[in-house]
Amino acid sequence: MEIIDDLKWRYATKRYSDEIVKDEILDIILDSIVLTPTSLGLQAYEVLVLDKSSSLRESLLTACSNQPQIKEASHLLFFNAWKSVSTENISEYMNRISLTRGTPLEKLEGFKSNIEKFTGGMSEQDVFSWSSMQTYIALGIAMTTAATLKVDTTPMEGFNRKAVDAIINKDNEKLSCSVILAVGYRDSENDFLSNLAKVRKLKNELISFG
Amino acid sequence: MEIIDDLKWRYATKRYSDEIVKDEILDIILDSIVLTPTSLGLQAYEVLVLDKSSSLRESLLTACSNQPQIKEASHLLFFNAWKSVSTENISEYMNRISLTRGTPLEKLEGFKSNIEKFTGGMSEQDVFSWSSMQTYIALGIAMTTAATLKVDTTPMEGFNRKAVDAIINKDNEKLSCSVILAVGYRDSENDFLSNLAKVRKLKNELISFG
Repeated sequence: MEIIDDLKWRYATKRYSDEIVKDEILDIILDSIVLTPTSLGLQAYEVLVLDKSSSLRESLLTACSNQPQIKEASHLLFFNAWKSVSTENISEYMNRISLTRGTPLEKLEGFKSNIEKFTGGMSEQDVFSWSSMQTYIALGIAMTTAATLKVDTTPMEGFNRKAVDAIINKDNEKLSCSVILAVGYRDSENDFLSNLAKVRKLKNELISFG
Repeated sequence: MEIIDDLKWRYATKRYSDEIVKDEILDIILDSIVLTPTSLGLQAYEVLVLDKSSSLRESLLTACSNQPQIKEASHLLFFNAWKSVSTENISEYMNRISLTRGTPLEKLEGFKSNIEKFTGGMSEQDVFSWSSMQTYIALGIAMTTAATLKVDTTPMEGFNRKAVDAIINKDNEKLSCSVILAVGYRDSENDFLSNLAKVRKLKNELISFG
């Protein structure tokens, strides 16, 4: 299967070349994020894209342990997960369903109240943990999509969340960055990781049949 | 792009037909899970696969709000995330790296102690939250892979975790189920969702450029 070859080809790229991902290619990766399925269909996050010319890259470098991808990658995608779900968020979602499917809003009352019950019982920490999970689905789908386009990616966790938020989510108390995805093209010559074998458990160590 | 068409084709299947996913097709989906990148490369979870003949399906039905996929889907994949990281887990991982890449264990000491520091500072809840995030990457990659094979999937969260664990993770205090993936073929005739338009935010509502 081609997709398996693509997944074998990809790796957590450490060093990126100067090559920029073209808009029409980036657009396909972003489309895959829009299409990502999420809990209740709420899409409880936003994505911020910074291209290479962004003036924020320099200050983000310190907040991200000076990882070279922050400076070098063609694009950086910040997955900013919701810390709360407002009644407006839920109403907007109901309107979106109603408009898309032609369903009368009255018929969505049961679903709406289920969402309100579910999200109403959660602390800010619970909401952020739940919405962060959803961003990781998008992360997986975006990395797979990128790999089929022979675009490299790096999922990045080891950053100072407060510091990153202060740079990209300032004045926005609803959002906090859950994970970053660097996107671009590997610099094979300077990336010692690019020639190393992928380390994975054997299938039967990871997966069992009941 | 074909992959975007595949992602548009997929939907959270509610009702599955009797058709069974062939072993060689399921294997490709499982391979994509093995290849999934995870935090620190630790693969801090296990996956349990139940086929349609599993005697556990009946009792799982109650633990999963009687969602029909539990009964009908060809296969159910349970992502069981770690609640703790032992020194054995880390040592096994170091051995795996050493064997795969021919790196002497001494050269991995720095990486090892970083992992120990990172995982040592976490509570059971922290570990489970962190490892669960990783299972959602696998979820995204598995759903994308399945879609390219025209295999339907349903990511399932709304289950009673304690009850599910009591059935599939009994006597295993390390694991707890973070998310379930139903796999099979849609029963279009009986699934009202199969003909409904996909509801998603507009690209510019979800994604912004800084």
